[in-house]
This record gives sequence, C-alpha cells and structure tokens, in this order.
Amino acid sequence: MPKLTKKINNDKLEIFLDDVLILEHSKDNPAIFVGNGREDILMYRGNFRITNLEDSKIPLKLFKETNNGIEFYYGDDSLTLIFNEEKTKCALKLNASKEYTRFWIRIKSDKDEHMYGLGEQMSHFNLRGKLFPIWSSEPGVGRNKNTYVTWMSDSTGMAGGDYWNTNYPQPSYMSSKKYSLFSDSYAYSEFDFRNENFTEIHVWEVPEQILLWKEDSFYKLMESFTEYFGRQPNIPDWMNDGIVVGIQGGWDKIKRVLNDLKSYGVSVTGVWIQDWEGIRMTSFGQRLMWNWAHDPKRYPDFKENVRKLKEEGIRFLAYSNCYLAIDGALFKEAKDLGYLAKNDKGEIYEVDFGEFYCGIPDFTREEVCKWFAKRILVEEMLDYGIEGWMADFGEYLPIDVKLSESVAMKKHNEWPVLWAKVNDMALDMAGKKGDIFIFMRASGSRAQQYAPVLWAGDQSVDFTKDDGIATVIPAALSSAVSGFCYHHSDIGGYTSLFGNVRTPELNDRWIEFAAFTSTMRSHETNRPNDNIQLYDSPTTMVLLSKMVRIFKALKEYRINFMKDAKDKGISLMRPLFFEYENDKESYSIDYEYMLGSDILVAPVWKEKTDNWKVYLPNDKWVHLWSDKEYDGGQTITIESGVGKIPVFIKKSSKYLDLFRSLKSL
Amino acid sequence: MPKLTKKINNDKLEIFLDDVLILEHSKDNPAIFVGNGREDILMYRGNFRITNLEDSKIPLKLFKETNNGIEFYYGDDSLTLIFNEEKTKCALKLNASKEYTRFWIRIKSDKDEHMYGLGEQMSHFNLRGKLFPIWSSEPGVGRNKNTYVTWMSDSTGMAGGDYWNTNYPQPSYMSSKKYSLFSDSYAYSEFDFRNENFTEIHVWEVPEQILLWKEDSFYKLMESFTEYFGRQPNIPDWMNDGIVVGIQGGWDKIKRVLNDLKSYGVSVTGVWIQDWEGIRMTSFGQRLMWNWAHDPKRYPDFKENVRKLKEEGIRFLAYSNCYLAIDGALFKEAKDLGYLAKNDKGEIYEVDFGEFYCGIPDFTREEVCKWFAKRILVEEMLDYGIEGWMADFGEYLPIDVKLSESVAMKKHNEWPVLWAKVNDMALDMAGKKGDIFIFMRASGSRAQQYAPVLWAGDQSVDFTKDDGIATVIPAALSSAVSGFCYHHSDIGGYTSLFGNVRTPELNDRWIEFAAFTSTMRSHETNRPNDNIQLYDSPTTMVLLSKMVRIFKALKEYRINFMKDAKDKGISLMRPLFFEYENDKESYSIDYEYMLGSDILVAPVWKEKTDNWKVYLPNDKWVHLWSDKEYDGGQTITIESGVGKIPVFIKKSSKYLDLFRSLKSL
Repeated sequence: MPKLTKKINNDKLEIFLDDVLILEHSKDNPAIFVGNGREDILMYRGNFRITNLEDSKIPLKLFKETNNGIEFYYGDDSLTLIFNEEKTKCALKLNASKEYTRFWIRIKSDKDEHMYGLGEQMSHFNLRGKLFPIWSSEPGVGRNKNTYVTWMSDSTGMAGGDYWNTNYPQPSYMSSKKYSLFSDSYAYSEFDFRNENFTEIHVWEVPEQILLWKEDSFYKLMESFTEYFGRQPNIPDWMNDGIVVGIQGGWDKIKRVLNDLKSYGVSVTGVWIQDWEGIRMTSFGQRLMWNWAHDPKRYPDFKENVRKLKEEGIRFLAYSNCYLAIDGALFKEAKDLGYLAKNDKGEIYEVDFGEFYCGIPDFTREEVCKWFAKRILVEEMLDYGIEGWMADFGEYLPIDVKLSESVAMKKHNEWPVLWAKVNDMALDMAGKKGDIFIFMRASGSRAQQYAPVLWAGDQSVDFTKDDGIATVIPAALSSAVSGFCYHHSDIGGYTSLFGNVRTPELNDRWIEFAAFTSTMRSHETNRPNDNIQLYDSPTTMVLLSKMVRIFKALKEYRINFMKDAKDKGISLMRPLFFEYENDKESYSIDYEYMLGSDILVAPVWKEKTDNWKVYLPNDKWVHLWSDKEYDGGQTITIESGVGKIPVFIKKSSKYLDLFRSLKSL
Repeated sequence: MPKLTKKINNDKLEIFLDDVLILEHSKDNPAIFVGNGREDILMYRGNFRITNLEDSKIPLKLFKETNNGIEFYYGDDSLTLIFNEEKTKCALKLNASKEYTRFWIRIKSDKDEHMYGLGEQMSHFNLRGKLFPIWSSEPGVGRNKNTYVTWMSDSTGMAGGDYWNTNYPQPSYMSSKKYSLFSDSYAYSEFDFRNENFTEIHVWEVPEQILLWKEDSFYKLMESFTEYFGRQPNIPDWMNDGIVVGIQGGWDKIKRVLNDLKSYGVSVTGVWIQDWEGIRMTSFGQRLMWNWAHDPKRYPDFKENVRKLKEEGIRFLAYSNCYLAIDGALFKEAKDLGYLAKNDKGEIYEVDFGEFYCGIPDFTREEVCKWFAKRILVEEMLDYGIEGWMADFGEYLPIDVKLSESVAMKKHNEWPVLWAKVNDMALDMAGKKGDIFIFMRASGSRAQQYAPVLWAGDQSVDFTKDDGIATVIPAALSSAVSGFCYHHSDIGGYTSLFGNVRTPELNDRWIEFAAFTSTMRSHETNRPNDNIQLYDSPTTMVLLSKMVRIFKALKEYRINFMKDAKDKGISLMRPLFFEYENDKESYSIDYEYMLGSDILVAPVWKEKTDNWKVYLPNDKWVHLWSDKEYDGGQTITIESGVGKIPVFIKKSSKYLDLFRSLKSL
C-alpha cells in the first residue's frame, strides 16, 4: 500500500510517493500551472494537425496546507491537490477554483531515471529526451521527416507522421524508480521528458486525478496498475495452434492458398478475410464496402462455407470497423433509429474516407453500443460462425462532431475504448468470450479490460527504423508497461506506398519474429498485387512451416505465462528490466524483449545482415540455434542469417529441454 | 504628431493611437503577459532549430493608472507601460518589476485589417493568418515542406527552411489602418497574426519600448517611420547605366564574357567577381578563400587590371563577409590583435563552414569594427579601386559565442546591423559614400541608415512560389514597408541543388523583371558549371540587351523617385495600396508592385505561360507592349510571353511619352 507524504520547509514543498520524491515545489520553481488556451485542429483522413493557441500558463507559486491536501494558488487562481490513498494506489484528486482549459504538473525526475509507456509508442521505448503528444491518430506513413516515404506521404496527404504518432496513446508512464503514473483524462495531452529535473505533463483540461502506483518490483507494479485498468481475457486457445493467414478474393482463392500452405506443412489455424463484406472500386483502387455483413456475391453460401472451413480446423476471421458506409443497408438502419452522430447543422455527420462517406454510430449512447454489438457483431458476424475480426479504426473521431454526451475534443482519445467495449459486449451477448479473436490497432486507457487485443498497426513494408519491422518491438514493450498483455503485428507489414514494396527477406524476418510473440497473423498489405505474399514463395513457405512448428511447440510455454497475464496483467512480451531490475544496461534496451520470463528475443530489424549485436543481461544463456552458452552482462555478436533470429534461453529455465528441441523441428 | 490616449471603464482599459484602438485589456481578456522560459537552439550552417521550453505565461490581469502610464499586475508580477509622445511617434516604454525572459503583448486587430512588413518576407506580403518568428538565418532552400528540394535540403542539412525564414527579420509591421509598430528588441520574437481580434507579439525579453507611428497616408507613415530607423544614402548613379554581371574565373574569362556581351550591345556598368580572393577546393566543390584580399595568382596585376576595366566604363565589384578563414593572413592579424570572439573555454570560436573554419571578429567592440572597416574594406578593397561588393552573411552568429558586450542570444538579430555599420564605416573613412555599391542579404532594425542595400538572398533557380523568382516580389514589398528603399535580386536566382538547374526561360523572366527594379545584377549560381548563364545564350543576350536599354531609359524616372527615398524613406518598389489607399482590393495584392508612383509591374513568376492575370487599381492605365488602354478596378488577362513582362503606366503620368518610347528601344 503506497503512501503519499508531504514535507514542508519554509516556502518549499515536497511530496513523496513512499520514498520517491515526485513533486518539488517552491515559489521560484513551481510545479503546478493552470491556464487557458484555444486550439486549431485540422483533420485529414485520420491525420491531425494540432495547433495550440495558448492564452496563459500561470504558475501557482504559493501553497498552503488544507485538510487532506495542498492548495496551490496565485492571484485569484488556485487548484487543490487532495491526497487519497487506496489499497494499491494513491490518487491526487484535482480541484480547480474555476474552469481551466490548460493544466500542467511537473513531476520530479532524476538524470538517470528512465520512463516508458504512454500507450503504444513505435519509435521509442525509453521516452527520456522527447516530448510526446497524446492524441489517437493514424500512425503515420514513414514517421521520419528525413525519409522519402514520409515526405511523399506528407506532401500528398498530410500522412507522414512523426516519432510520436500512434493509434494507441495513453497518458501513463512507468518509471525505472518502480512507480507508475496515470493522468486521468482523455483530453489532448503532452508528456514532456526533455528536462533533466522534471517531467512536465500538460493536459487540455484539469484532469480529475493523477493516479500513482508504487511497488518493490516491476511485476508487482504491473499487477497493481492493471488492477485499476482491468486485465484482458486470455486469447483463444486455438490461436496457439498455427498461423492466421490474411487472404482476399473469394472462396476459390482461399482454398488454393490453403492447399499450397498445407503442401508445405504450414499449420493454419484461421484465415483472415477482409473482403468478406464485399468491395467497391475507387480511383485509388479496390476498397472494402464498410457495410458489416457478408457479401453473398463474393462469398456465396457463406455460413456453410465458414462451417466447412472450420471442419478442416480453420477459423474464419473477418474485418469490421466503427463506421457505416452511407450506401450500405446498416447505415440506413442506424439512421432510421437515430443512432448516428450529427454535425452542427443537425444533419448526419459524414466522414470522408476517399470517394465514399460514412456515418458515425454515437457510442456515447449505451443503446447505440448495444445495437452495434447485437445487430452487427453478433447477428451479422458471430451468428455466421465468424470467430474473430480486425476491429479497425477508432482514431478518426472528428472534433466537430456533435455527440450525445460530452464534446468530441474530450471523447477523441476515448473513442477506441468505446469501440473496444462494443466488441467486448458482443462477445458477452453471444457468451463467447475467450473463444473469439478480435484485434485492434487503436486503443486507450481502460480498454485493457476488454477482449480485443492489440496489433501494432500499419508498419511500412520495409526495414526503416521508424516505420518498419523494428517499430513492433518498442510498440510491444510500451504497450506492455501500459497494461496490454498480448501484442502482435502484421507479418510482412502493411503499408506499401510510393514504390515501397516488400522483399522476401522482410516476410522471412517477420515470420521468424512473429513465432516468438503471442500470435502469428499475416497481412497481404494495402497493395496485395504489388507485394510478394508469404504464400507466393516456396522458400518462405519452408521457413514459415518451420517457424509455425516452433510457435506451436512453445504453446505450453506461452500458456504458462498467460496465467500471469490474466491474474496479474503481466504481458507475454516484456522489457528486459522486468526480469533483470539490477542490470542497469537493460533499462536502455529498446529493441530486445523477454518472451515470458525465460526467453530473450532480439529480432533482426535491418536488412542484409548475417550478424546481430545482442545485449544479454547478467545471467547464463543458451543460444537457440547453436546451443552455445553465453555469459550475460555483455553485448555479444551472434550469427543471425535469415531464419536464425537471435533467441536465447536462461540456462536455469525449466523449459530448457523444450527449447533445445526447437531447432530440429 | 500622433497621440496615445487611454479610456478606462470599470475593469476595462482601452488605449488609442489617435483614433485607432491598439490595446484592449480587461481581467478576462488581458493584453499583457510576462513569464519565463528556456530555449534549446541547434545551429547547423546558418540554419536553426529553435525550441521554446516555456515555464510561464502570466496574464497581468489587473491594472492601475500611474503618473504617465499604466501598471499591469497580477500577484507579485507587474509591468508598467509608460506613455511617451514624441514629434512623429509615440513610445510605450516598458518597465518590468523584475527580469522576465518572456513577454507578450496583444495588439488589437480587426477582421479586415492587413499587416505587412517584419523585414524581408519571401512567402507572404500580407501577413494575416500566420505566425512569423523573427530570427535571422539562412532563408531556406525550397521553403515549402511539400517540395522535393525542401525535403532533400532538410534531410541532408537541416536547410529546407519554411515560409518565414529570412535573412532580414525585423520586429515591425505596418497596418492597413495606417499605423506602424516596432517592438524594440533584437531578441528572438514571434509575431502571431493568426487571431482575428489581436496580433500577439512574443519576445524573449521585455523590450525596452514599443514604438508607434500614425499618419494620414502611407507615404507620410513611411516618412515618419524611417525618420527613426534612418534612411539609406542613394545608390551610386553609375548603377543606373547598365547591368552588373556576375562572372568568375580570372581576367581572361571576364574579358571574354564582356566581349560577348558587348557584341550583343549589352551595357555593362560593372562586373561582380566573387573569386577575387582566390578559391579553395573541398569535397563539395570549389569554395572561396574567405581571406578578404585579392589573390595575386588568380588575379595578377590586380590594381592595374581593375583600373583598365574602369577605363572601359566597367567597375570591379568583389565579395566579402564578416568571417575570417583560419588559414588566411587576416585571421592571423585579427587573432594577434585579440579581435576574435571566444568560446566558453576562452579559445577562439571557430565556426564550421564545411571543411573549413572561420573566426568571428567581435563587432560588439568599436575598435574591431574600425579595424575591419579600415584594414580590410578600405585597404584591401577600396584602395585597389574596388567599387562595390556583396557583403555576405551576418545571420550565423552562434548563440554560444562569448562577446565583449551582451549575450549572443540578444545580439544574433543585431549582427547583420553591425556588419552593415562596418561597411558603412569603411565608406565614411574613404569618403566614398554614394559612389560604392554594397549589397547585403542579411539585415535588421536600424540598418536602414547605412549604405549597404538589400538583395533578396538566395532564390532557388526555379519558378516555385516559395523559393523561386516569385519570392522577390513580397520580399521587395515587405522590405519597403520595413524601411528599405532599394531592393534587387540575383538575376537567374542562386541556389541550384539536387538536380534543380535553371532554364533559359528563368533567366529571361528574371532579366525582364530586374529591368523594372532598382538594380540589374546577375549571379552565376552556386553551381556555375551546371547552370546556363545569361552570357551563354544568344537569345538571352538579345533580350538582355533590350531590357538593359529600357532600364537605362528609365534612369531619369527612377532618379526622380530616389529623392523620395533619400528624403522620405519611400522605396522605389512600392505596394499598390501606397498609391491607391481607397482601392480595397489593392491591399491583398502580394505579387504586383508600383515602380515609383506611376508604373505598375506584375512580373510573370510561373513558367510556360503566355497570359497573366493582373489586377489594375482604380485608375486609367496604358499597357507597355501594346499601348492599349485599360480601366482599373478590375483584374485583366494580358498577353505576357517571354520578354513581355506585364507593365502598365498611369495614363495621367507625366512620363507617358518616355514610357511609350520603351517598347521600340
């Protein structure tokens, strides 16, 4: 049970969370600021340009003790922090004297401290030194202003993004001092880790509270943290039995691909069929229909064929999102029921998705959530035998849409959470929780409690550090410290634009990496015809076959650690320092992870390399492919040609024999 | 004589400049803010990345009247505005209760108001709707994040720039309400014109004063404004007699080019020879020596040859800047005298210019200025018969250099002014003011009083709106309202990078444009061998010959208006609304100008166009090339093939006959 204590010395105030000084305040170095501002926000297809027009930032220089807290004030501005200790966390409740649209708090930091989290961060696991806006959006294509793909994306559609863009932002971080902090607000925020002595948190409202957790170990910390946010139900057992293959194009195509894969001995547990709802043609090429019911022309005898596939051990997974295309039947139903959000003229708000428009079911209304869950997800999907889907989007809530409850600026970051809730509702209604695999790229605070699991969003089909395969590693680790236990990514990546197409090598590297995550699932990319598919290449299918065997063989190992997930909110993929908290170096490792507590994985994320530098924490290690033993506490260079992803197991692991058997599978 | 008056109504304060409400303040809508902040500034070869780490922005919500002003205060923060009326201007003197590193003032604005100026702005004449940082720097290569050249420049050297980058920023603007405002500080500033009801001026110190001018006409306003900033000496008469041609490569090359030009009947008044000081080879290619003395190897018998050229009516112009290369003799002299600025270790500060380094003469010391003027500009240049030079740079003062006086952060924007002063000093010492043509790209507040004239900096050799020939027009107009009377640009542009090379059409368009400015001068670009020169093309030389004849024929016309410049600070190139203040449309015209008060010029700045849209203010107009008459108050489309720059004269002009004679020259 963590405790908050205050220490006052003349005009200086210190607040401690157990032994950690978290707030240091004096007249000359105030820690609390209030103010006002306006914003100018431009959205173009899920990409936002956010401009802060700041009116004031008033340091509340003075303070006085109150009953159970501290009042900070200056002039006629004031804000009270009320201390509230609960069983496994502390709360600083915030009580402002009037309404402010801007709030800042400076949390004390030390030079050597590391911070992690903020939801799913693709470019940085260790957050120190940078400022991170918290705003759900498209993740960006390229995500580095120096690359050609980013520049083209920016200049053609405002879509290039930057290091901080993410589908899943969350205003919480974990400190290497073994505390976690959550700024309880869905408003636009910024976490500024650029200063040596403090972390500045900036929120476009006064949050209700700042929550703090403090424990003696990172594992305990995750347990307390996820007690608040909720813990995910386990992913279905059948997801451990093979890969889910992304295919499109109708039953014949699916059968052909499955036969090919079978002939190479690839265990397939499911097919993921985006175009189950039919397609539409636009000048950009083929798009999906966005009316969440199967297309009987493209997929005739739908229910029967889904059932037949299942008989062969292969589940049918579909695609859905939280919009309804205006030319679809479900849009009409929702419209007639009055369930769609309006614009300020009282008309139905129509969002541009590129030559077609969609309505927004207003998820701030419980009856709308229930309708979407039952009428669509249950009746059009689960009832047909569909056993999973990509629950896409959630990031596009325009800020000028009129909602039943609250304003869009304060709901924007919550929208993915509501969308996750709607998906979870459907499973509850159908009594199928734990049997269905739903995957989302968007997310937010408190979505942890719902069934949908994260996938890492839309990597470019390349080896770039800020948008390629590499990004999946910080993404998995930052999601882990943010409370998500299951993380995976599109095998082969997704975004193929401006001549950027994937190589067989990229597919191969992604396959070997996915085998050591929670889930293997492939994607055909946004341009399936321009990109090589894993089912196109015999050498890739040979590798895939082997890697799926390894993945299946690790089922027992993973399931053991899934208990940690369910009971304690501890993720399958973990930062090294969770396990090696006394190993100082491990706090700076952004591109390696532990799978469970025994296996260390260092995916190769650069192309054309046969050697890879791996940091091994202080322990005894056995290398997967050579069986060689290594002492930790050092960086080694290991042979790592395609198919030889650097993987090590603790020599002391009880799974050592299983591990040693993998290479000959 | 403008007057400041205050009107107080309960908690609301209004300050009027004559009849213009310039400040509106109440508790809920304060106009004055103080605060503190830190900055993180990265400089790479004259390009800066400036990050504001803001600690506070305290609205001084309350106010009380004092003796001769108003005290604004909140908590223990306060700042007094003291009213000070002088003959042709008013001052708001600022008196803060303690030191602040940040200051903001909101000047009242109306929806329909236009603002112009801020020194030399290349992308916008009318400033409404945007935020403009005031920080002297490289102008940027590309200056528009959507262009390939900008992206390449950014990703290879932080050099792409943006719409606001300029060599000559000045914290002053002119309002369409016929007042001008100057924030008297050389610190980093921002002018934010994005708000409808106010202009927010943000300065990284409390400026000494805000100066205000108000007159009944724009001409009178310029006169009062430049009374304070100083007015430039006229440019030498001989600059009216032909073109100054940029050439490099030694005496033989110069003679060959001059002969070619002569054979086409081109009047040449001077040659501008950058490599007079010798060259050095780097991996980037040929660079100059940066030791400001002639190179006797490359230019043997220097004085004699300069004299001979002059006998043929051709002046020798050279190149210099405010740095001294560490491998040159003049560096050694300066070093031995202790005239070079130091770093924080007490060593001579060496600035990286790309494989060679330079020292910085400390112009905050009067004796250093005098030494540079006398020892270099007089003894190494004027005494040899040099009659002009490019006084390059001034924008690169690093912020961590140790100066004799003040700190570099507060001197950065002043450096070009000191550099202009040094050049002016040299002319005074030699008694040659009015005879010598010095041109600078950098500038700043109060440099107006010195001899060097502006050139528009380093346009890319193309037709892009943000970095090509187009930029010269807003650059000339914004400089004009900022107090500079003579503006010109490199004929043909300068920057040729990433495969961007100039076309003959660009040379031709620039020639016809330059003929209707104050000066004709050409540049060979940064890559002379890759780019076509005006002396390379017979058709261009035919055009040039004609355009120089027109330029010469307009000498009398220009000289008439140069009196306005000398006596009243009214520029040769002027905004349309100076002359047509009742023509509402003319306030929005960014790409046309008046040459003097009778000639309207609308340069063609797009490629491959034979027609051009021209707005004619409410008057009667005669078209130069067709002699056709047009009524103003409308936009017309005019035939405008190469060589037919759209030019019109007022039908009522006393120069109509001269004008009509031009087309047959």
